[in-house]
Amino acid sequence: MTETSITPNAVAAVSEARQWDRLMQMARLGAFRGGDGSEGVNRACLTPLDREARRLLIGWGQAIGLTPSIDALGNLFLRSEGTVPGLAPVLAGSHMDSQPAGGRFDGIWGVLAALEAVQALHEAGVSLARPIEVVAWTNEEGGRFAPGCMGSMAYAGHSAADSWDAVTDSHGVSFGEALREHLAKEADLPRRPLGGAPHAYVEAHIEQGPQLEAAGLDIGIVTGIQGSRWFLVELLGASAHAGTAPVSMRRDAVQDMVRAITALNALMADPTDVLRFTVAKIEVEPNSSNSVAERVRFTIDFRHPDAAVLTARGDAIEATIRGAVRHCDVTVTERFHALPVEFHPAVTGAVERAAAAQGLKAVRMPSGAFHDAQFMVPLCPSGMIFIPSYRGISHNPAEYSSPEQLVRGARVLAQVLAELARD
Amino acid sequence: MTETSITPNAVAAVSEARQWDRLMQMARLGAFRGGDGSEGVNRACLTPLDREARRLLIGWGQAIGLTPSIDALGNLFLRSEGTVPGLAPVLAGSHMDSQPAGGRFDGIWGVLAALEAVQALHEAGVSLARPIEVVAWTNEEGGRFAPGCMGSMAYAGHSAADSWDAVTDSHGVSFGEALREHLAKEADLPRRPLGGAPHAYVEAHIEQGPQLEAAGLDIGIVTGIQGSRWFLVELLGASAHAGTAPVSMRRDAVQDMVRAITALNALMADPTDVLRFTVAKIEVEPNSSNSVAERVRFTIDFRHPDAAVLTARGDAIEATIRGAVRHCDVTVTERFHALPVEFHPAVTGAVERAAAAQGLKAVRMPSGAFHDAQFMVPLCPSGMIFIPSYRGISHNPAEYSSPEQLVRGARVLAQVLAELARD
Repeated sequence: MTETSITPNAVAAVSEARQWDRLMQMARLGAFRGGDGSEGVNRACLTPLDREARRLLIGWGQAIGLTPSIDALGNLFLRSEGTVPGLAPVLAGSHMDSQPAGGRFDGIWGVLAALEAVQALHEAGVSLARPIEVVAWTNEEGGRFAPGCMGSMAYAGHSAADSWDAVTDSHGVSFGEALREHLAKEADLPRRPLGGAPHAYVEAHIEQGPQLEAAGLDIGIVTGIQGSRWFLVELLGASAHAGTAPVSMRRDAVQDMVRAITALNALMADPTDVLRFTVAKIEVEPNSSNSVAERVRFTIDFRHPDAAVLTARGDAIEATIRGAVRHCDVTVTERFHALPVEFHPAVTGAVERAAAAQGLKAVRMPSGAFHDAQFMVPLCPSGMIFIPSYRGISHNPAEYSSPEQLVRGARVLAQVLAELARD
Repeated sequence: MTETSITPNAVAAVSEARQWDRLMQMARLGAFRGGDGSEGVNRACLTPLDREARRLLIGWGQAIGLTPSIDALGNLFLRSEGTVPGLAPVLAGSHMDSQPAGGRFDGIWGVLAALEAVQALHEAGVSLARPIEVVAWTNEEGGRFAPGCMGSMAYAGHSAADSWDAVTDSHGVSFGEALREHLAKEADLPRRPLGGAPHAYVEAHIEQGPQLEAAGLDIGIVTGIQGSRWFLVELLGASAHAGTAPVSMRRDAVQDMVRAITALNALMADPTDVLRFTVAKIEVEPNSSNSVAERVRFTIDFRHPDAAVLTARGDAIEATIRGAVRHCDVTVTERFHALPVEFHPAVTGAVERAAAAQGLKAVRMPSGAFHDAQFMVPLCPSGMIFIPSYRGISHNPAEYSSPEQLVRGARVLAQVLAELARD
């Protein structure tokens, strides 16, 4: 069969109903009701809920003949063999963990779309030279253990596998402990070495921004990802009695945090509104209303598509904070640093061709969010497929993409995988 | 026997070693090590640790013939009968709960000093007309359930007994639930009606400020307590993806909190350094570094000795916050309001006479901290005895008063109780 004959069969075999049903089954694992009544998901990595989701995925994969395996970071692979022995696989997937108050589509759809695409290729009888591996990366979100993308960073050799062993969640459980427990509970899965040399990597994902919806488009051909730098700031003052300690004599960590954030807002001011600066996680000790705060930890999430801006302003963060605080000891730790990346024309081209062949409206666009895909860039030709997000809402229970939007993305992915795994 | 003959015997019977030993036994219940190596206490109200401390106290009281009873708020009383039936009792005590990262002396010493004083009066064979009741008020600190002083406020009729049933701790447990569980577990104790009409109330307490130590004094004759107003501020914005949501389009609750605190700092500015303004408890949702904060709750603790200042600036808080925030919905709830109080000359006089009779250096002074005593003022002649705090440190593991300083306070209390309960 030629490409022109096989691909339409596979594309037609991609099932809107099956994919949606699987998404909704996954959404039950960690389901919660948002303030506006919408259905959200809170499924942190390496929890019993995460394991339940992985088991569900493995069951679906095994039912169509895929072989599961797991590596030292808990990254999960479901392999469909190719016809030519020894060829490097094409990887497709995303992550299964969610934000603490996350939605039903972020990450999990990319994994299920890859499964759906592989299943459609099987059902259409498409035989491909290369293996395809559906992959679910561990801890993309960074909501429980910061930073995110630990699984893909370790796989790609960006960071050593034990880099985050000591990182703790809000209950004091370390990533190392949680990972060991997870691997022990998944000991029946075949273990594979960490890392590899894939032929290509493709990740389908919701846009998490408003552009595709606003422009009435179906597909985003993702050209690259802006860079990110994450910092943890710790301010150490002294606790004191809120009724007796004169304000002039305090070393109040909350007040120094306010000074630091105010100064950082000035550093990060950007009239073009391209720069993303966010303080979103704050922990105060002892966090009692009548004890002056002894310690504050807050996070900085700073992103920009221009590596020069990312470097210059990111490098100025610590001095800005030190210049602003009055009383506290300051510790600034960079927890995550990813330069902007550009995706490979072999993948962006394949996405563009598939969308065009399927009569879908597509646009080239960068990604504002980071994704596991950015760590695959040094390893192999990599790229991403975006579909529209309702009002651009994400990391929120109100996150939504319709079954129709989702199946269009899976159909493009099926065709892209067919092209990349062909030879 | 005349007063002049009995009192020296009772004062001599107050045991420095016994009181210190009991304090150190109590300090084991919730002990933790502070950052500087000092021994702190974390014993939140209505927890198993709190119950263990109360049981220890009851045992010591019963060993010297005191009768325990408990009221609907969990306030605990240990009664020593007087010789004349039907006279109203003199109450003496404080609280047994601590701040989350508290010290070994705040509250618990006032209870143990009352026990020590009663025991010394017994051992010296002093017979008094009136009963003396050692009291431990429930939830003075407000660290687990805000506000503090719930036990004494309900006892004094300042607030209805069910006012705080719905107040939850950081794990979502309500005060009502915790209280019901506590009362069920203490069902073997005789139940007494809530409230009463005591003859007088005396509370011994560490100063929690630096004045007595700095001036080389032994005893503070507390003349009154500054007023307090506590507020809970809730800012509701919208969560969004930290990488994709343009800063200009965000409704970021952390940024609005920074604006609100900055404006409040201006409202609360006080060149005389008498005003106490504290933001010490902050809760962010979802509190994930890469999700723009949807919701922030922060507390305000505002105190001043002048009722006019307390009213004027306290009443301006809500408008100040509303004027400062840009994007969030604002809710400001006043959780606690206590006007400044003055203590009764019958008690302040008794403290002054006792200190003078014992050759101790004493000074009249107001209290910066609030105490259960302030709610007793409308009920009966009330007052407090302060002893020095090392460097004024309190609500902190480094809180310290020496065995010698503590026993001087208990001796003054013994003599004050003898005078007040005499007839």
